[in-house]
Amino acid sequence: MQIGVLGTGMVGRALATRLVGLGHDVMMGSRDAMSEPAQDWLRAQTGTASVGTFAEAAAHGELAILAVRGDVALDVVDLAGATPLKAKVLIDVSNPLDFSQGMPPVLIAHLSNTTSLGEEVQRRLPLTHVVKTLNTMNADVMVHPERVPGPSDVFVCGEDAGAKATVMSLLKSFGWDAPIDLGGISAARGTEAMLPVWLRLWQALGTADFNFRIVR
Amino acid sequence: MQIGVLGTGMVGRALATRLVGLGHDVMMGSRDAMSEPAQDWLRAQTGTASVGTFAEAAAHGELAILAVRGDVALDVVDLAGATPLKAKVLIDVSNPLDFSQGMPPVLIAHLSNTTSLGEEVQRRLPLTHVVKTLNTMNADVMVHPERVPGPSDVFVCGEDAGAKATVMSLLKSFGWDAPIDLGGISAARGTEAMLPVWLRLWQALGTADFNFRIVR
Repeated sequence: MQIGVLGTGMVGRALATRLVGLGHDVMMGSRDAMSEPAQDWLRAQTGTASVGTFAEAAAHGELAILAVRGDVALDVVDLAGATPLKAKVLIDVSNPLDFSQGMPPVLIAHLSNTTSLGEEVQRRLPLTHVVKTLNTMNADVMVHPERVPGPSDVFVCGEDAGAKATVMSLLKSFGWDAPIDLGGISAARGTEAMLPVWLRLWQALGTADFNFRIVR
Repeated sequence: MQIGVLGTGMVGRALATRLVGLGHDVMMGSRDAMSEPAQDWLRAQTGTASVGTFAEAAAHGELAILAVRGDVALDVVDLAGATPLKAKVLIDVSNPLDFSQGMPPVLIAHLSNTTSLGEEVQRRLPLTHVVKTLNTMNADVMVHPERVPGPSDVFVCGEDAGAKATVMSLLKSFGWDAPIDLGGISAARGTEAMLPVWLRLWQALGTADFNFRIVR
């Protein structure tokens, strides 16, 4: 599948690397035109064939992934553009974290509780099928769930059942056997609000190789 | 142990019933002087010997439990009073949920994200050792963790190590073998923020008999 990964940070690189390993044709997108040496480094890191702007990566993908810091995510959506993303699935893995008040970060007030980043991304892109997933864990665990000893869970939510099925199939290829479908995109309020306890757990456990499991 | 349970709702009754079953001397506290028939009903439900006001229940307990709706929790703390709770452990199981905007509820804005109900309770009671725990699950699961098939987790946080040890011992008597210590009371921001996803899971799974496990 042709996939555009918006974001070249740790999360974007982890996703791109895994997707390339699974045989997908990945273009990574960044804000600015990268220098040749930076592009070379990114390609070597991830195995991707191509690096472009957010808009180019969005246009490249039959499916795109939003993997950027929450405080810039809506700007990145605007830079990618509604037209290149029209009628496509956009996987949103970002979290609305506000690091400006020190560590651990809090949630960005206007993107949480009574709304969510997932909902706001969907609002900006009404003709795109936004699916929120993978945002409740470390980047390495996202793409290699076996890093965590024993089964654990990933959540999906979004408005379009077909889009969620596509995403669940991709998640399965990462190793996630039975994602939990939480319903519409407003459930992102719930999964994004897991970050505060995730960050406390990271501190308390001294490792990011952990994940939530819903025992039932 | 003499224990005061502040709150006569579903959570308070579940806790009182379990504590009485474990041999503790429990007084339940409510806002208003209850009628004799109401007191009789509550005693029959829970097995408790006594029912009183919040202040009487707080005074009765060597340890007290705050088990009321989050939107009234600070009022209840004021009614119980700082003096009866002085130098005691207060277990806070409440959550700052705002039901005024419909279902599912959101978090009360001024009691979440950059603060928490746990922290605000501690602020009102500087001479009391507040320990936040048990707020991330259904009342039945709180006191009977075996309702959930397979091991799952409970979190504790608070400023005083001795108070946390006391609480962990009580939790162990409920069946919680290894509570996860998240550090100081500000970690309540994390556990209280798990309620939005808990509520979505409740809806998606169709049962409240589930719990979080941290796989690591």
